[in-house]
Amino acid sequence: MKKTLITLAILSTTAAAHADEGMWMPQQLPQVAKQLKAAGLKLDPATLTKLTEFPMGAIVSLGGCSASFVSPQGLVATNHHCVYNSVAHNSTKDNDLLANGFLAKTFADEVPAAPGSRIFVTKDVSNVSDKVISADVAKLTGKKRSDAIEKNQKSIVAECEKDAGHRCTVSAYYGGLEFYLIKQLEIRDVRLVHAPPAGVGKFGGDTDNWMWPRHTGDYGFYRAYVSKDGKAADFSKDNVPYVPKLSLKLAKEGVKEGDFVMVLGYPGRTNRHRLPSEVSYTFDWNYPAFVKASGENLAIIARETAGNEDTRLKYAGQVAGTNNYYKNRQGMLDSYAGSDFLARKTKEHDELKAWVNATPARKAEFAGDIERVEKLIAERDADNKRDFFLGYAQPRLLSTARSLYRLANETLKPDAERKAGYQVRDLPRFKASVAATERNYDEKVDKALVLNSLSKYAALPQAQRRAAFDAAFGIKDGMTQAELVAAIDTLYAGSKLGDKTERAAWLERKPADFQASNDSFVKAAVALYEPGLKLEAEEEELGGNIQQAYANYMKAKIAYMKSKGQAVYPDANSTLRVTFGRIAARDHGADGTTWTAFTTVNGVAAKATGKGDFNAPAAQLAAIKAKDFGKYADAKLKSVPVDYLATLDITGGNSGSAALNAKGEFIGLAFDGTLDSIISDWDYNKANTRSIQVDLRYMLWNMKHIDKAHNLLKEMGAE
Amino acid sequence: MKKTLITLAILSTTAAAHADEGMWMPQQLPQVAKQLKAAGLKLDPATLTKLTEFPMGAIVSLGGCSASFVSPQGLVATNHHCVYNSVAHNSTKDNDLLANGFLAKTFADEVPAAPGSRIFVTKDVSNVSDKVISADVAKLTGKKRSDAIEKNQKSIVAECEKDAGHRCTVSAYYGGLEFYLIKQLEIRDVRLVHAPPAGVGKFGGDTDNWMWPRHTGDYGFYRAYVSKDGKAADFSKDNVPYVPKLSLKLAKEGVKEGDFVMVLGYPGRTNRHRLPSEVSYTFDWNYPAFVKASGENLAIIARETAGNEDTRLKYAGQVAGTNNYYKNRQGMLDSYAGSDFLARKTKEHDELKAWVNATPARKAEFAGDIERVEKLIAERDADNKRDFFLGYAQPRLLSTARSLYRLANETLKPDAERKAGYQVRDLPRFKASVAATERNYDEKVDKALVLNSLSKYAALPQAQRRAAFDAAFGIKDGMTQAELVAAIDTLYAGSKLGDKTERAAWLERKPADFQASNDSFVKAAVALYEPGLKLEAEEEELGGNIQQAYANYMKAKIAYMKSKGQAVYPDANSTLRVTFGRIAARDHGADGTTWTAFTTVNGVAAKATGKGDFNAPAAQLAAIKAKDFGKYADAKLKSVPVDYLATLDITGGNSGSAALNAKGEFIGLAFDGTLDSIISDWDYNKANTRSIQVDLRYMLWNMKHIDKAHNLLKEMGAE
Repeated sequence: MKKTLITLAILSTTAAAHADEGMWMPQQLPQVAKQLKAAGLKLDPATLTKLTEFPMGAIVSLGGCSASFVSPQGLVATNHHCVYNSVAHNSTKDNDLLANGFLAKTFADEVPAAPGSRIFVTKDVSNVSDKVISADVAKLTGKKRSDAIEKNQKSIVAECEKDAGHRCTVSAYYGGLEFYLIKQLEIRDVRLVHAPPAGVGKFGGDTDNWMWPRHTGDYGFYRAYVSKDGKAADFSKDNVPYVPKLSLKLAKEGVKEGDFVMVLGYPGRTNRHRLPSEVSYTFDWNYPAFVKASGENLAIIARETAGNEDTRLKYAGQVAGTNNYYKNRQGMLDSYAGSDFLARKTKEHDELKAWVNATPARKAEFAGDIERVEKLIAERDADNKRDFFLGYAQPRLLSTARSLYRLANETLKPDAERKAGYQVRDLPRFKASVAATERNYDEKVDKALVLNSLSKYAALPQAQRRAAFDAAFGIKDGMTQAELVAAIDTLYAGSKLGDKTERAAWLERKPADFQASNDSFVKAAVALYEPGLKLEAEEEELGGNIQQAYANYMKAKIAYMKSKGQAVYPDANSTLRVTFGRIAARDHGADGTTWTAFTTVNGVAAKATGKGDFNAPAAQLAAIKAKDFGKYADAKLKSVPVDYLATLDITGGNSGSAALNAKGEFIGLAFDGTLDSIISDWDYNKANTRSIQVDLRYMLWNMKHIDKAHNLLKEMGAE
Repeated sequence: MKKTLITLAILSTTAAAHADEGMWMPQQLPQVAKQLKAAGLKLDPATLTKLTEFPMGAIVSLGGCSASFVSPQGLVATNHHCVYNSVAHNSTKDNDLLANGFLAKTFADEVPAAPGSRIFVTKDVSNVSDKVISADVAKLTGKKRSDAIEKNQKSIVAECEKDAGHRCTVSAYYGGLEFYLIKQLEIRDVRLVHAPPAGVGKFGGDTDNWMWPRHTGDYGFYRAYVSKDGKAADFSKDNVPYVPKLSLKLAKEGVKEGDFVMVLGYPGRTNRHRLPSEVSYTFDWNYPAFVKASGENLAIIARETAGNEDTRLKYAGQVAGTNNYYKNRQGMLDSYAGSDFLARKTKEHDELKAWVNATPARKAEFAGDIERVEKLIAERDADNKRDFFLGYAQPRLLSTARSLYRLANETLKPDAERKAGYQVRDLPRFKASVAATERNYDEKVDKALVLNSLSKYAALPQAQRRAAFDAAFGIKDGMTQAELVAAIDTLYAGSKLGDKTERAAWLERKPADFQASNDSFVKAAVALYEPGLKLEAEEEELGGNIQQAYANYMKAKIAYMKSKGQAVYPDANSTLRVTFGRIAARDHGADGTTWTAFTTVNGVAAKATGKGDFNAPAAQLAAIKAKDFGKYADAKLKSVPVDYLATLDITGGNSGSAALNAKGEFIGLAFDGTLDSIISDWDYNKANTRSIQVDLRYMLWNMKHIDKAHNLLKEMGAE
């Protein structure tokens, strides 16, 4: 519901103060040509700006993960955790592919990836800033501005998507100061080709997540399929492997400490130039609240699923996701606690304001908007704070009912006027999501989660609560726990949305059907609809104003940085970026240790316990013991390298990104950062920041010596 | 029972091939004066040979642990784990001193250490080789030789102990080639002065035991008390603090990486020049069997004490000890598995034999004994293998009954002729041990342990079993588990030795009383007595022959090493030794890491969980958070150092050893080694070996900033 705000607010910009800092837009690379050369790049930086040529043409998005073509037959390399759901999807009780791994020995053995899996191949990127913020729009404020921006975006997208089989996106950069249209071929027939056993691909599990030393073989392979005439198409046996214009070549030489490395992928979000108030809101309130709520939710899920393997599995994905963010946010909080981040941020902001106020012209252009954005953001944060528990207190099926009713209402409008997310182009994903409930929902667990958050919500003073929600749920001041339980029980008992067929039926129904329904969640959804629209309108009013003021604040910031001679790259926004640096150890690890640049299979054997997070396959352990390393042993390490550290600026979304050497050859896959540097998403920390990559040699050694994936090795030119 | 053999067999010798290798007898230090100077020692090495002068005069033994005087009023610094039992002994339900720590603010507040606690102050060391192996003894073989050696040792000890309040020991060096008489003042009034909370002193617990990075504040303080006339005496309120001739001065400057460091203490045992067959027996059979048996016993104790806090506490000491050795032995086995130790050992032995056989004179002098020692050791190892399960299958109270009956028999003889361990001088310790059963024995647990091992013993072919034991226990071929359980139940049910008064009464009884008793364990003890003596005689026969052959084999070895220009120090044998080296990081830690030389309190905060092994006190965590470091922060580390690594050659028994700087000033306490280097007890590993010391600054910081032990700081001259 707050997507617009989030989309606007996450965008910011930062200066390239350090050699290894920077998630560069490909077209910006000539600006840092000198640094690239100095770092050791042997390609012309200009080459990297051409999105359909070598090597950028081989880089693809999976939507949330990054990936790359590594053969001329559409073979795609990415992380194990990016193909995880597809491996799970194809697992059966009798054949646990997660545990055993999966290898299609021939094309015919390849199996469909999880429903909704996509491979996005970028075809074109163009600046549409003037079309999104047209002269007319520039004059607008508030909701009118939000609506106009959304309308322009949708019309640009609709025009672009006339080219069937493509997905188009308008992305905002520099805090909404610039907008780019990204046109991607949307490959819908995605097939699972190979994943090592979880004992390799997920070795270390949650224990090692965000940690070094690391020994995860986080790789897996998809293949892109298209119709015989080369068009994106739904799964069909008649489809053929997609022939990409370009695919990456595997490096023949192993990498070593100090080597140049660059990572090409789709980082999700960074927040390096937020306002001081946003930093304070996030680190002093929001993240601590999130960590607390996540901890409680994890404990509730553990309690409610104990002894029920079926339910436990249904919530495994949510648990993994929550755990991941829990650790991530706590890691950032730990870093924040020992830092002067807020003080520094405040000082920088004060310096910007002093610079703005130093000339009447600058003051006239920027001062008002800077003051305004501070005020507006404070308003938004207060709203978010107020609604924090409410967000967790919504029964899953109520959310589903609300989406379904919204869909029924939006469907009455012409497609172009519908809310984003409810257009015809969105329907397949919408339906898949409604259907998926079956696989990841359990009423008992959901109730327990809702009860916990609802108790906190109900304890708020009435002025902090939402009247419509109170009415729909029967929340009153001073309710006892027993009354809350009874209210929830009544609500859940009165709905049939837990039934898959019933849920699917609502996809086709009209608003009047909803209004006439006695289903408790549907009734609540109808009751919450108008108040929800009102809230949304208020948020859009705020959002439109924030967009205007934020963009101008960013413009001031860019101008200020330029006055100091510093180039600027936009914060990450899930679009294609390049980061470069070198393979590097770190002189401080856990207290009493340092980090070396590489781990080796010796460490796999040392960590292996035969169970849980450290269940390395017996065949792999035997090969390590026998030093059956073949050509993949590193001469200096005298063992097969597993993972390596690099001074690369990556974040979530970069998972599966190809790591390339100075010649643009494939040398592994980025898959993680380290806990004490993830605050870099907000405050880049040169001393701590290290990305973690799985070494190509480890991938190939496993594929050759353990999993016998000779067909793939041959296809990639490795045999 | 096999003490004589063990005493002889553990002694061996090794060459000082590396700068940091070597547990030197103080009198040997002038031989390595050049290395000492090169390493940075600023004292004259000759000073270190004088046992009653600076600094050696300040070094004491606690029997099993090392320690040192750190004030002119008899204050003794040692490890927390060396005062642990005394802290536990003084704990009550209402005041858990282990958890809370203990600090006597005045002398009057100091409390008696655990019963049997001793401080041994070395007064004299003299070479008595010619008296132990006199011309007469040299001609003897077998049991006669064993008996004569024991007789000579006892008479030397008796003569020496005529000086009341002293304890004298004749220790064998170089495989029984040399013997030294060590005369020590035996201080019996030992009082607990200070121990930090277990959350400091045992921080990391079993999890971190043998590990780096380490954050254990393993220190504690005793005080030695004597009678007003300065003599060793039992506890009395009238006793006064012992005034040592010398005490160590605390270093004013903090240590840093690369600094010279030496450790003075009482290392227990090393085995660096064993025969190849002993290496194979130990690593291919004995240690694996020990690890398996220990694992089973730990599981049994955990199972049988579950839910019973009282019993769990009774076995806590045994569990801790077993865990420690379990981890130690497994660590050695892991190192052994990846090494060429046995092959190298065999090659060295072959080279020695080739050197011996190269001249007729050498061949005549040594060849026969080398062949003989190999054969004798093989015999002894076969016996040990055969009796492995039997050793574990003895009910505790049967062992007690056997000792009591032995005592009754020995008491009939004149003191000088009694078996060592049963002389008048041994009685106080003997009685304390019989009494202690109350605190660390539970019939249900003991039965379960015995049943497990007895089942394995009973399953051996009859020829591998001991007939007398079978008769006493009613063991027959092919017994069912139920029959074994019944046999054990009958045995336990028939004894009253579980009763403290009953046990104590047997201390005074005559052999005839035992023979007339119907107590099942006493009856079994009587039945096993004569067969036991016969077995002992056989072992002494073997032992006497081994001593003779082993000593000559060692003589050959020393001569051979000398021919290669290499100096030789004797293996550790619980006597005073000096090892020196430097404070040093290590370039390989866990795979993917290296080790820095120091840990800091930052790591304490990072590891702290508020419970279990990582329960740092809240006051300490608050001080760390507030960076309340005072003068104890290291300038480079920007924090208070906790522990540091050094290239020192130490082993069990060195616990509590004073670490001194180049000027002989106190800079901390050695307390551990690291798991991947403990195989150094057998095979010195220069690359891996690091000792772990607690930094004086961490001790003082805790004492000043957390525990407010100003009285002690003042006494040591630190305030």
